[in-house]
Amino acid sequence: MNPFPDLPADILAAIQNALREDIGPGDATTNSIVPPDATMRGHIIAKQAGVVAGLDVAKAVYLEIDPRVEFTALAEEGARVENRQILAEVFGPARSLLTAERTALNFLGRMSGIATLTRQFADSVAGTGAVILDTRKTAPGLRVVDKLAVLRGGGQNHRIGLYDMILIKDNHIDFAGSLAEAVTRARAAATGLEVEVEARTLDDIRAAIELGVERILLDNMTPEMMTEAVKINAGRARLEASGNVTLDNVRKIAATGVDYISIGALTHSAKVFDVSFDYIK
Amino acid sequence: MNPFPDLPADILAAIQNALREDIGPGDATTNSIVPPDATMRGHIIAKQAGVVAGLDVAKAVYLEIDPRVEFTALAEEGARVENRQILAEVFGPARSLLTAERTALNFLGRMSGIATLTRQFADSVAGTGAVILDTRKTAPGLRVVDKLAVLRGGGQNHRIGLYDMILIKDNHIDFAGSLAEAVTRARAAATGLEVEVEARTLDDIRAAIELGVERILLDNMTPEMMTEAVKINAGRARLEASGNVTLDNVRKIAATGVDYISIGALTHSAKVFDVSFDYIK
Amino acid sequence: MNPFPDLPADILAAIQNALREDIGPGDATTNSIVPPDATMRGHIIAKQAGVVAGLDVAKAVYLEIDPRVEFTALAEEGARVENRQILAEVFGPARSLLTAERTALNFLGRMSGIATLTRQFADSVAGTGAVILDTRKTAPGLRVVDKLAVLRGGGQNHRIGLYDMILIKDNHIDFAGSLAEAVTRARAAATGLEVEVEARTLDDIRAAIELGVERILLDNMTPEMMTEAVKINAGRARLEASGNVTLDNVRKIAATGVDYISIGALTHSAKVFDVSFDYIK
Amino acid sequence: MNPFPDLPADILAAIQNALREDIGPGDATTNSIVPPDATMRGHIIAKQAGVVAGLDVAKAVYLEIDPRVEFTALAEEGARVENRQILAEVFGPARSLLTAERTALNFLGRMSGIATLTRQFADSVAGTGAVILDTRKTAPGLRVVDKLAVLRGGGQNHRIGLYDMILIKDNHIDFAGSLAEAVTRARAAATGLEVEVEARTLDDIRAAIELGVERILLDNMTPEMMTEAVKINAGRARLEASGNVTLDNVRKIAATGVDYISIGALTHSAKVFDVSFDYIK
Amino acid sequence: MNPFPDLPADILAAIQNALREDIGPGDATTNSIVPPDATMRGHIIAKQAGVVAGLDVAKAVYLEIDPRVEFTALAEEGARVENRQILAEVFGPARSLLTAERTALNFLGRMSGIATLTRQFADSVAGTGAVILDTRKTAPGLRVVDKLAVLRGGGQNHRIGLYDMILIKDNHIDFAGSLAEAVTRARAAATGLEVEVEARTLDDIRAAIELGVERILLDNMTPEMMTEAVKINAGRARLEASGNVTLDNVRKIAATGVDYISIGALTHSAKVFDVSFDYIK
Amino acid sequence: MNPFPDLPADILAAIQNALREDIGPGDATTNSIVPPDATMRGHIIAKQAGVVAGLDVAKAVYLEIDPRVEFTALAEEGARVENRQILAEVFGPARSLLTAERTALNFLGRMSGIATLTRQFADSVAGTGAVILDTRKTAPGLRVVDKLAVLRGGGQNHRIGLYDMILIKDNHIDFAGSLAEAVTRARAAATGLEVEVEARTLDDIRAAIELGVERILLDNMTPEMMTEAVKINAGRARLEASGNVTLDNVRKIAATGVDYISIGALTHSAKVFDVSFDYIK
Repeated sequence: MNPFPDLPADILAAIQNALREDIGPGDATTNSIVPPDATMRGHIIAKQAGVVAGLDVAKAVYLEIDPRVEFTALAEEGARVENRQILAEVFGPARSLLTAERTALNFLGRMSGIATLTRQFADSVAGTGAVILDTRKTAPGLRVVDKLAVLRGGGQNHRIGLYDMILIKDNHIDFAGSLAEAVTRARAAATGLEVEVEARTLDDIRAAIELGVERILLDNMTPEMMTEAVKINAGRARLEASGNVTLDNVRKIAATGVDYISIGALTHSAKVFDVSFDYIK
Repeated sequence: MNPFPDLPADILAAIQNALREDIGPGDATTNSIVPPDATMRGHIIAKQAGVVAGLDVAKAVYLEIDPRVEFTALAEEGARVENRQILAEVFGPARSLLTAERTALNFLGRMSGIATLTRQFADSVAGTGAVILDTRKTAPGLRVVDKLAVLRGGGQNHRIGLYDMILIKDNHIDFAGSLAEAVTRARAAATGLEVEVEARTLDDIRAAIELGVERILLDNMTPEMMTEAVKINAGRARLEASGNVTLDNVRKIAATGVDYISIGALTHSAKVFDVSFDYIK
Repeated sequence: MNPFPDLPADILAAIQNALREDIGPGDATTNSIVPPDATMRGHIIAKQAGVVAGLDVAKAVYLEIDPRVEFTALAEEGARVENRQILAEVFGPARSLLTAERTALNFLGRMSGIATLTRQFADSVAGTGAVILDTRKTAPGLRVVDKLAVLRGGGQNHRIGLYDMILIKDNHIDFAGSLAEAVTRARAAATGLEVEVEARTLDDIRAAIELGVERILLDNMTPEMMTEAVKINAGRARLEASGNVTLDNVRKIAATGVDYISIGALTHSAKVFDVSFDYIK
Repeated sequence: MNPFPDLPADILAAIQNALREDIGPGDATTNSIVPPDATMRGHIIAKQAGVVAGLDVAKAVYLEIDPRVEFTALAEEGARVENRQILAEVFGPARSLLTAERTALNFLGRMSGIATLTRQFADSVAGTGAVILDTRKTAPGLRVVDKLAVLRGGGQNHRIGLYDMILIKDNHIDFAGSLAEAVTRARAAATGLEVEVEARTLDDIRAAIELGVERILLDNMTPEMMTEAVKINAGRARLEASGNVTLDNVRKIAATGVDYISIGALTHSAKVFDVSFDYIK
Repeated sequence: MNPFPDLPADILAAIQNALREDIGPGDATTNSIVPPDATMRGHIIAKQAGVVAGLDVAKAVYLEIDPRVEFTALAEEGARVENRQILAEVFGPARSLLTAERTALNFLGRMSGIATLTRQFADSVAGTGAVILDTRKTAPGLRVVDKLAVLRGGGQNHRIGLYDMILIKDNHIDFAGSLAEAVTRARAAATGLEVEVEARTLDDIRAAIELGVERILLDNMTPEMMTEAVKINAGRARLEASGNVTLDNVRKIAATGVDYISIGALTHSAKVFDVSFDYIK
Repeated sequence: MNPFPDLPADILAAIQNALREDIGPGDATTNSIVPPDATMRGHIIAKQAGVVAGLDVAKAVYLEIDPRVEFTALAEEGARVENRQILAEVFGPARSLLTAERTALNFLGRMSGIATLTRQFADSVAGTGAVILDTRKTAPGLRVVDKLAVLRGGGQNHRIGLYDMILIKDNHIDFAGSLAEAVTRARAAATGLEVEVEARTLDDIRAAIELGVERILLDNMTPEMMTEAVKINAGRARLEASGNVTLDNVRKIAATGVDYISIGALTHSAKVFDVSFDYIK
């Protein structure tokens, strides 16, 4: 019986995994110093401005350790928060709070870091209609955690894994002999999944549109090529820009008229968001 | 029977976890396009200069998918590599190589990113005798992976989890009543583990030394205070600097004479190391 | 390291699960009667005509029990076989063969039963262009096993689970207020997944086409309504017939011009295919 | 702490397994369309007459997804139900109900299908004293689920797996040299398990009785041979008829006086029982 | 694919469990001192006389850690060995041998301790026809390991768990109202399992025989009562003596003519058998 | 969500493991005889004098089976108890109590047996200042269970596994070339773990002290050598006596002035503590 019905099961598994690796056979410090019946109250506090994500995950960390813990979130998921803002109040057995602290903050810091960076990109393209997407370049074992953080930062999710969309890359095309043959085989498999094709030239784009693919990935193209691609496409497929996107160039890319901009850095290179737990004596 | 006896079991579990979340019920693209009997050869290539770490983990990813894959590492773990340098050659069933690629590169990119940043800090303190340490601020579920990368970058590991060292922080001291009482309780538990105490003032340091603790954590002290701490300590306990360490200030900190400098950013905010898989036609 | 790289990991898990429940702490009969060093050779034989599927799964069952077993498939996956035809030869330690037999045959019988029924439906619509699909009405825990059997019988797979396609049913529409609003929300989620909508009237179909959905499910419609739906659609969305499809009426349905016909009975009500293991003395 | 103390642990594991394969990283349709705070009420309804089994399993599926769901069974396990009869009322968060529906109905439909077929056989032999048994020919991974459905249909369970009874088949006898030697070895193992022997001739039966085995399996014998076997046995061992039992011939077999009739079709070829979930607006 | 087809899967799981708890994130001593490419050869040596059991389990421990290890057993399972006798030779990577040593010896010492005690009991009753049995009083998690050791010491196994035999104790009888009613219910469940009943008086024994139970447990009876019980039984049921059996009184009990003597101490109170690993320089 | 926050997760896993191996697919006796709605009350009673440990573990066993069970401990952990003393009262569904009984008592008997033996050793050295320690010679899979029992008997825990302390034994020294080189390598690894070295001669002790190791293990030394070792050490390292410690010689060893005495027999050869469950009618 899942005590956290609003969290994906994969996130619950990630929480259990993280607690097991941190605690092992026991918290030697806390168990030898803190009395079993002591209680404790404290605040989780932002140590920087940004976007918060993962308070529900942090809550689940505490409850997984001890269902007697009371965790009250004081900020909304995806909200902008100020430096020194209180994000949550936590009360319960002191041993449980001390043992859970680092794991809870590791999730919260990672997720808020991803959400904060995602929001910066999303704000940069505001008004252009372009949507910020993540990639599969997530921390191993944290796919769903990282992608949830992107959602809360105002981005949207590209495919979850290899199974929920067909994305034909250059290597696949080589094994099929041609882009057209690759698409034909993908269609023949009748998986019911959308088909996206990686394009490196404007001819690739024309071929892909002809074949009726749902999406085209414009791989490492210049903004000029992208503008041309949008013109050729004329609204038929959806276009995704990818490769070397930064906060400096993202608006220029969005201005070309592409539908999506996918950015690996959201999940593979976001800086942690600084949070701490402050004990209220 | 563990087919990778040189890798910790936790890393094998992390690999299996990562593959499961990425592949799910199958690689829809590859399975519909690439013939089952096609083979493929390719290179894993550095797309930046830095320090490589995790080639053995990447190899295990490929072999976990398919034991017929031949993976030949062409760089040593922890070696400095140039941009465009070939790190490994991979040969085997094309479907297996394509399905494993992203997960293998996710591990390799994360670990090399951590090793590269660690090496920068280690180089910055070269000759001072100070040792660079990691913290428990690792990606949830990747504790042993992240810490292995730190080792390969020339750092050393702080405790693995809550179970293999006693580290008494302010909150623990509050529950004991005093630093002395906290240390006494920790000693009384007779766990056989080293005891480290967090100190915020020079008086804390004197008290800790008097109590014979093995290590003292100097929390967010100025270099001046650290220099004073080193003098007071006179080689009795080992001293660990912690808090807001950057590439800019790390040498100044090392110059104070502390034994260790622990840095959360090594594992919570390292940028991914850029690697790619290039197919050799 | 997966010793069966050509089988999905879910099938390997299903095999281990099935062996554990059948063997428990040991095969009491075999272990008390058959000497540990005895070997055995036998044939797996079809006891009816039909389509064979799952010989690779049966082989994995034997190897999971004992890697010394030699299993030689003598029929192709998806091939039509005659009553009394030899499907495979098995040789190895007698205890291992006897302990594995029932589990191997349970998989082979179930998968061949599904493939045989699927082939009957596929043959019935031959030449019409309609494709036979399965549903999510599979035996709990055997989703990928059952769907593999459908593929080998000449059908194709509908979505694997709730995560790899959007299929909007009546209940979803009620919570959105209208079919148009439901589709709008699904598009806004930007999951990259194809969208299919359940239609009960011709007006539903017109609305769905207008919204550009990729597929429409014609739920329990008469062949006359389907013919009309095909006309209205004019090749824009793909149409899927569903509900009360039998071998008697399937060709009539296919003749209406729908693209897909999905049939729950393929996996929830197929009769087992009769196979036995014959020991060669 | 098992929240379903009345269900065998194996069934809880089967439920978790089935939910994982169906939901994967999330129900894309429901999560994008249905508001998180919407609630829903509905009925599970029989779409045919028959015997219901598995309402407690279906309830556990819903609660496993979300403990806030209220599930009220409106029929007894093993009861005969009419077409259109309401079997249960379900109320709770709409997302949870929609996500759980297919898995709950897959269990309920499979179990009720098995119970309905079992009841038909049980009714056919009413008054003869013969007991209907299942076999180990169950869906892989669903041994305990399928066998529970047989019980609820009025049958009884043959052995659960290879570990809880000794059943000596022809192949075992070959490795021992003779039926007598096989039984002797089984007795010598002193497992404390009942011994049953497969007999193909009347001489086999005489030998088995002489050896004092508890049960004899009459494999593919004609009713005439069975009558003769009953006479020879004279109440000493219990006799089990097996092989090609149908609703047409089962009463004739029961009339020979055998104690048990075991039928693989109960679990390997039962048609699903038709059930649906109807939303009450 | 089980690399140890001759060991029950439960024992492989126990081995993995034991290694995980001992090694955790790594063998800190060995990894910091012993070079990765060093090899090592050593002997496992008995430090007392007794009966050896578990060399195959010890071998599996080493291979689980590292498949490159060569383990050569130099004594038969169940053989009597002298003090200082070499039981096995082990060669392979030094790190792997050092890391595996304690876990391998813990299994070997426990199993040989159980086998040695079992053999003492078995020798004490030699010639009487009584069989020494174990009970369910095994170390939690080691049921199959402990019972395998009993077999190798010359005892036989009572039921493995609650599922493979019916053993009606006083508490069960109280809930049924009478011994007869309890047996009737057990028979009615038609589980195909043998029925044993606990008897405290000679009247209980007469009732049980009348009901045709297969075994009777004589609970804490005097030898005189047991002699009487054997007379009453006249070879119909099998009789099992139980309660306070010691090496001093076991032969007297066996001389009463009972079939079985079950002894909890075999598995809950056996002393470890002393073994060590000696490195050959 | 862990329902037993005061128990280490490893103990919960050991409980689940033990229940699975004992119950398998079901308690055949109880399920066929005891009505599902019957309740039961009983006492867990000591059948000998000694020290009780594991009542909280026994309680968790019952609750794991059925959360409706009410378990009231009537003795403190680590308390001395008399023969016939009531240790706990248990009330709840009769089926659940009967099914859980043996597993609960197996844990309680093992843990109390270890605690009782530990207390005997601890009492024997009372007043000397020496501390009784356990070793890694625990039952495979029960490391944390066994070590908890030692704590409750008045001993303290040596390292939990290979990961939480460095203990350099003879074999490690051989691979390093010398004791000094081994210690140097261990220090260089900077694991933050205490270093202990095995010493066989007084020269070894002098070398170890010189190197500043935290602990020295005096392996199989005579009391005279130990006295000399204490003198040489002069309070610098902590000294641990090990090897062939018995109740007869332990006080003599303690009188030498060593800090610790480690005893494998505490966990590998303790006799079970006799407890029973008495049903209150």
